[in-house]
This record gives sequence, structure tokens and C-alpha cells, in this order.
Amino acid sequence: MLKITATFLDEISWDIPHQNWTPAKWDQDFAAMKKAGINTVVMIRSGLARWTAWPCEYLHKNAATAMPETDLLDLFLTLAEKYEMRFFLGLYHSRYYTLHGRWDKEIDLNKGTALEAWQKYGSRKAFAGWYLCQEISVNSGNIIELYAGLGKYCKEISGGLPVMISPFIKGIKEGNEWNPELATGLASISPEDHEKEWRNILSQLKGAVDIVAFQDGHVDIFELQSYLEINRRIIEEYGMECWTNCESFDRDMPIRFLPIKWEKMLYKLKAAEAAGIKNAMTFEFSHFMSPNSIYAGAHGLYECYLDYINK
Amino acid sequence: MLKITATFLDEISWDIPHQNWTPAKWDQDFAAMKKAGINTVVMIRSGLARWTAWPCEYLHKNAATAMPETDLLDLFLTLAEKYEMRFFLGLYHSRYYTLHGRWDKEIDLNKGTALEAWQKYGSRKAFAGWYLCQEISVNSGNIIELYAGLGKYCKEISGGLPVMISPFIKGIKEGNEWNPELATGLASISPEDHEKEWRNILSQLKGAVDIVAFQDGHVDIFELQSYLEINRRIIEEYGMECWTNCESFDRDMPIRFLPIKWEKMLYKLKAAEAAGIKNAMTFEFSHFMSPNSIYAGAHGLYECYLDYINK
Amino acid sequence: MLKITATFLDEISWDIPHQNWTPAKWDQDFAAMKKAGINTVVMIRSGLARWTAWPCEYLHKNAATAMPETDLLDLFLTLAEKYEMRFFLGLYHSRYYTLHGRWDKEIDLNKGTALEAWQKYGSRKAFAGWYLCQEISVNSGNIIELYAGLGKYCKEISGGLPVMISPFIKGIKEGNEWNPELATGLASISPEDHEKEWRNILSQLKGAVDIVAFQDGHVDIFELQSYLEINRRIIEEYGMECWTNCESFDRDMPIRFLPIKWEKMLYKLKAAEAAGIKNAMTFEFSHFMSPNSIYAGAHGLYECYLDYINK
Repeated sequence: MLKITATFLDEISWDIPHQNWTPAKWDQDFAAMKKAGINTVVMIRSGLARWTAWPCEYLHKNAATAMPETDLLDLFLTLAEKYEMRFFLGLYHSRYYTLHGRWDKEIDLNKGTALEAWQKYGSRKAFAGWYLCQEISVNSGNIIELYAGLGKYCKEISGGLPVMISPFIKGIKEGNEWNPELATGLASISPEDHEKEWRNILSQLKGAVDIVAFQDGHVDIFELQSYLEINRRIIEEYGMECWTNCESFDRDMPIRFLPIKWEKMLYKLKAAEAAGIKNAMTFEFSHFMSPNSIYAGAHGLYECYLDYINK
Repeated sequence: MLKITATFLDEISWDIPHQNWTPAKWDQDFAAMKKAGINTVVMIRSGLARWTAWPCEYLHKNAATAMPETDLLDLFLTLAEKYEMRFFLGLYHSRYYTLHGRWDKEIDLNKGTALEAWQKYGSRKAFAGWYLCQEISVNSGNIIELYAGLGKYCKEISGGLPVMISPFIKGIKEGNEWNPELATGLASISPEDHEKEWRNILSQLKGAVDIVAFQDGHVDIFELQSYLEINRRIIEEYGMECWTNCESFDRDMPIRFLPIKWEKMLYKLKAAEAAGIKNAMTFEFSHFMSPNSIYAGAHGLYECYLDYINK
Repeated sequence: MLKITATFLDEISWDIPHQNWTPAKWDQDFAAMKKAGINTVVMIRSGLARWTAWPCEYLHKNAATAMPETDLLDLFLTLAEKYEMRFFLGLYHSRYYTLHGRWDKEIDLNKGTALEAWQKYGSRKAFAGWYLCQEISVNSGNIIELYAGLGKYCKEISGGLPVMISPFIKGIKEGNEWNPELATGLASISPEDHEKEWRNILSQLKGAVDIVAFQDGHVDIFELQSYLEINRRIIEEYGMECWTNCESFDRDMPIRFLPIKWEKMLYKLKAAEAAGIKNAMTFEFSHFMSPNSIYAGAHGLYECYLDYINK
């Protein structure tokens, strides 16, 4: 029975409204994660455009980011230590330079972020790895150069800590959520093309990326298993770990986004298990699976999930 | 004073996010329904596309549906019996065959669903009727054949239990919710055309449909009464019962959908009463009117509604 | 440290789903406002299209509005008195006549609303001012005539009570919320054009408008301060008070709209303070900042805000 043992922490959020939690509330949520079997937390980004989750001087100077009131990196490390979890640090997404073809600049801003984080927090017990926050479904722009360059750099400065990415499958739901026609036979990338695409990408990420956790929400849920089988096979072939990022929000509803129906999440977990995947993470616990979430559907999902893992 | 005595149970949902309720939570919600005067529950669908609300072998084999973990049909029948309510069973919507003109296939899948349901659950005390879940506003495709064929089939296998449909009026809000221009004078189908259209449809449903519960949310709320008057007149003329399906969600807001403003719901109930309608149902209690809903606006709506019926 | 001392009361709502509050719940919410330092409440509208917040005979006869069950104007005045707040009354928005160029009709309906309100409620202790609810970013149609005519009329009948408007800056987010491209460099109206535009408008509102509270959510948050500086400078130059309407909902998320991230709100308050603005209001407390809100993110925002003002 595949269980979820890792979750993103969605700071800085891209498209999920903020819960406005105090540190005490975050503590309460880490306790709920622990109870649900979470042992690894992945801060999705240090910064996005001009907002940062911790007071990064480098980004403030080089990307004109605002200095935050609260240092969430310190808070999350402290809580990860309190609850005996591993912490992975996501880096920076300018939301600008990749769109405008300035990959060199995007890479530099990420390196500067990683370096400052390592210098300030690298000695923290929970600091266990890195997350590269640019998300892709196919090769585009200089993404391979970014992944390879950044991954190697992060490992270099940190004594080889593992590096994670979380791409998505080029499926029918990409940017296309809540389209009632999705159930009537539109096509995702073919499994063959998906495999070909990712063989090319993975072959160039050797020594740079350790964990590949594909998002599981973009393809028709009933076709998911065949893609997961490909993912596991080729990712392991290139010497990396294949995780599933089992999304806990629902892409099939007009409100973007609320917690997923438990039945769907269970179906996806079983598909991953059937594909031989051993590690599941989720995007993400605190909004979509937590008893503390602002979305009450998450309270039910937590209860359903706990019933599932405890039975 | 017209009261709501029936509600849909929105399983399998089309576009309303799931609440992830355990059986205990459903029990609590049936208790809240009872307190609000609900005596009839209508499960909106047994299945939608590849998901089902109860383990229907026929759909599993013939429509490749997933087998659900929980048998909601059994649960809802049990709760309906506990709370002394009547239960109507909604059938199947492929979301595919009607779009692709394969009405014969849609009808067959529905008949198979009905038959298996009746064989397995037909002896249950609460099982009181059928609901045909394809929704129309005007005649299109082979919908009349579907309604007539299915309705007669359901009555035949069940010793004549009543059959319900819930069409909608071809109004300005169809697929067009939260358009600020809706308040500025766009036109719905004319009352004359609505009457003509539905005389044609109803005249072909004799002996197949017993209850017609038009959804009340697609036309300008201030024009609703005139459509309801037509509905009642012609539906009764063809020997059926005219109910109003008084929607408890708000179609006028950018978030699709949250609980309706009580003032609007009251206005619609009064319009139905003025039109001489004796029975009101709602889509639907558990998300939009319940003290247990994930949407807190529903908690207020429940309180407002209880104040109204108890004063 | 700039604090929020005023809030809109969003009745009749344009696009924010209703909370379905009983009078007891409203009382509870005024208590929460008081605790947060709110001393002024502004009912955003008496009526919108065919709905009204209080039983206005004039609108019922002249704009075919429905007569409401509850008199929210009386309720809000009573609560404002109980909690020692000032109350400003918003007037009427037809949602029709301005779109169709019938400004004379819009003005007449507003005057009739104001007169009846004053005759019925003008003696109430909390009645402290007026709010003109048509919102603009640039001069268009006969808006100046409407503001000037209505503002003078309201002051005339009420012995000179102050008149407020709340325009917005013609920024990239107008009607364009949750566009991920907004972060990549689209342009708002230039500060120069904004100043020129508003000098023209303000110069014609002398003696008619006393308080101008620009909405702060339409421009890039990092460019806000420069617009606020212009606002304060020119509004004061024309002898009016410059407030900021610090929006407490988030325009950057696909769900339109949930409570804003506290970090962003704080950034905006600081920008207003740096621009020399002395008064902040918000749209609006009850949905987006209140411990009673249907949106749980508001509960957190209330907590964060209270921590901020009490530290």
C-alpha cells in the first residue's frame, strides 16, 4: 500500500491563495503531517518574481525582491527538526527571464539563492536536499542546461545533497482544467513520445538530478498508470529515483483549485503502486489534505486518508 | 408558504467539488436534512463517465467504470430508511455517447444500470423512484426517445415507481454564469417558444415520466415566475407533477459555485408559490444549504431557511 | 504605522458571494471590526440593478427593485451606533443606464434614493456621510456630472455631510485578474497620464466630493507607491482628503476572490504610509479580514493584522 511520505510547502505560492498562518499554526500543521506519515517537506520556492519566503539578500539586490517580515525557511527548518523530517529547499523562479529567453540570468539568480541559503542554513540538521522549481513537460528553451547546471552546483556546494525536480506529463489538462470536454476523448502526448522526450532529457541530467517526481494530474486519470510505468522504467534506467507527485487538488472542477475527491486520489495512488513506484509526495498537504486547511474539503480528505493508511 | 421537501444528493458530481465525507458525516447530514423538512432524496447519478457511486458490475464491464470503495447507494438507502425519507435513484451519464450521437448506447447503459440496481436494491424500503439524469432545455438528439424508453423501462421493472426529470429553461445564464452583462437586458428563450418546445416534448413522455422539476436558475430571476406558470400549466395538462428545482447555489458570482444569497432563494420560492407549484426540491442541500457543508455560506443559508420555515 | 479604520459593508454585492448572516451574526462582526480599530463603515450600495439593501420605495417604484425582507440600513445604523462608529451610505447603481448612456436617469435614481434615505434615516446618530458607488479609473461618459451633481445634492439635503468616492487606477489587473503574464511586464496607465487624468476630474468636483479613496489593487504592487504619491498630492491640492482603499482580497489568484496574503496587504499599507496617506479603509472586512468570514483565510488575516497593530 503506497503511502504519501512527502509534501511540498507552497511558499511562495504561484496560484493557491494564502492561508495567512502564524508560526503557531504552522507548528500545528507539521504535527498533522507527522500524524499522516509525512517525513519529508519540500519548500517549493525560495522566491517567485518579486516575493521571497525568506530574507534573501542576494535576490533583494539582484531581482529587486521585497524583504519578507517572516523567515519561513528558518521556521520550516525548525519545525522539520522538531518533527524529525527532512527538508528540501526550492530555489527561485523569476517568472520573467525564462519567458524572455534569458536563461543565463535565471540560472545565476538560482545559484546566488542556493549559495546564500547554504551559507546561512546549510548547517541545519534538517537541510537534506534541493528542489529545482522550474516545471516542464517537454524539453524547451535551455531547461536542460538549467537543470544540469543548477543541480550540479547545488550538489557541489552542499557536499552532494540530493536534487529533486517535479515535471508534468504533457496531458490534456495542462492549462485546460475544468473543460467538460476533457472527458470525451481528447488526447495527451502519446506514451511513446513521452518516453522519447524524457529519455532525451534524463540522459543529460546524470549527476545533476537524483529524484524525479512527476506531477500526476495532467493526463486522464485512467491513462495515468501507463505513463507512470514509463516514468519509473526510464528514470531508474538513468540511475535516479522515481517518485510520484500525487496531487491532492482537483483539476476537474470549475473552482481552481479545491481538494480532490478521495476516490480519485486513491485511484492515482494505486496506479503508482501498480507501476512499481515506491515513494509518493503530494502537492500539497497544507491546503488540500490538512485538518487545518482553509478548505474544509481537505479536512475530510485528511480523515479519509488516515482511515486508509491505518486500516 | 412553499417549503423544500426534496434534495438531490450530488454523487457522482459533475462540477461541484467533493466534500470527502465519511458515512458518519453523511448520517449527520441526513439528520440536518430531516430537521429542515426534507422527506425525499434523489441521488443525481449512479455513474458519470468512468466513475460510479455504487459498485455496478454492468457499468464496470460495459463502460469501463472504476469500482468504487464505498457503496453510496447502499449507504443512502440505509440513511433514507433511518430518517424515513423516500429515495430516488439517478442513472448513468456517459458524457460521451450523447455528444457523439450514440443514443442507443446511452440508453442501453442506463437500462443495464437500472436493472442491476433494481435487482440488488429494489427490495429496500426507501427505494421510491427513478431519476433520469440527462438534462435538456430544448429537444435535441434522441433525448425524447431516451426519456420515453428509459422511463417506461424503469417503471416496468419496478412495478410502476415514479420517474423524475429535471430540465432547465433555455435562459441567459446557461453556460454563461458570472457575466456582468447578464443584468443589462440579454434575452432568454421567449415564454411562447418555451411553451411550444415543451408541449412537444411532454406530449411524447406520457406513461414514461411522472415528475418534471425544472431547474430555476437559468433565467433572469425577475422573469422566473412567468416561466414557472407555463411549466405548471403544461406539465399538469399532460398529467404529470410539476415541481420546482430551486437551486441553492449562486449563478451570478465569479466563483462557480457557492451558496446562493438567501434573499434570492426566497424570491424564487415565492415565485414558484405564486405560480401554484406545490413541491420544491433543491440542487442541493449538502453543499449549499447544510450546516455540514464545506462552504460556510451554506451554514448561514441553513439558519436563514430554518428561520423562514419555523416562523 | 498606518492602520485601517474604515471598511465597506458589501451590500448589495456585485461579485462577492453572500454570507447569509443573521442580524446576530452582523452584531458579532461589528464587534470584531471594533476590536480591529474600525471606526467607520461604508455601505457600498443601497441598491444594485433590481436588488436593494433596504426597503426603498422610490427604487421599488422607479427601478422595479424587489423589496427586501431585511432592512440592512436600519441594522447597520443600529450596530454602528452600538459600536460608536460613523456610517456612510452608498447609493444606487443600475448596472444598466450608464452602460446605455442614460446618465440623467442614473443620477435621478440616485437622488431619489438619497432623499428617501435622508428623510427616513437622516436623524440617526451614526449617519455621517455619503458614498457615490459608481467606480471609474478615467473620465468616461457623464461621470463627472454624476459625481458633481450627486455629491452637491447629498450635501445639500444633509447639511453638508461629507461625500466619498472610491475610484481605481487604470492598472494591468483591471478585469484581468489571475493572468500569469501580469508579472512579466505589462504596463498600467503611466503615472503622468494618471495625474493628468485625475487633475481634470478632481478640478470639477470641488464642493461635491470630500474624500477620495483610491482602490489599491489594480496596479503592480511594486509600482503602487508612486501612484499613491500622486493621488495624495493632487487630491490634497484640490482640497479633499486622500484615503487609501487597501483591498483585503487577492487579485492574483485564479479563484476570484479570496483573502489576500497578509504580506501583500502589509506591503500596500506601508506604501500608503510612505506616500504620506493618513487614512486607510478596506474592501472589505467582513468577507476578507473577519474571524466570522465564510473564507477561513480571512480568519488568519485577522489574526495577522491584529498582531501587527498590537505589537
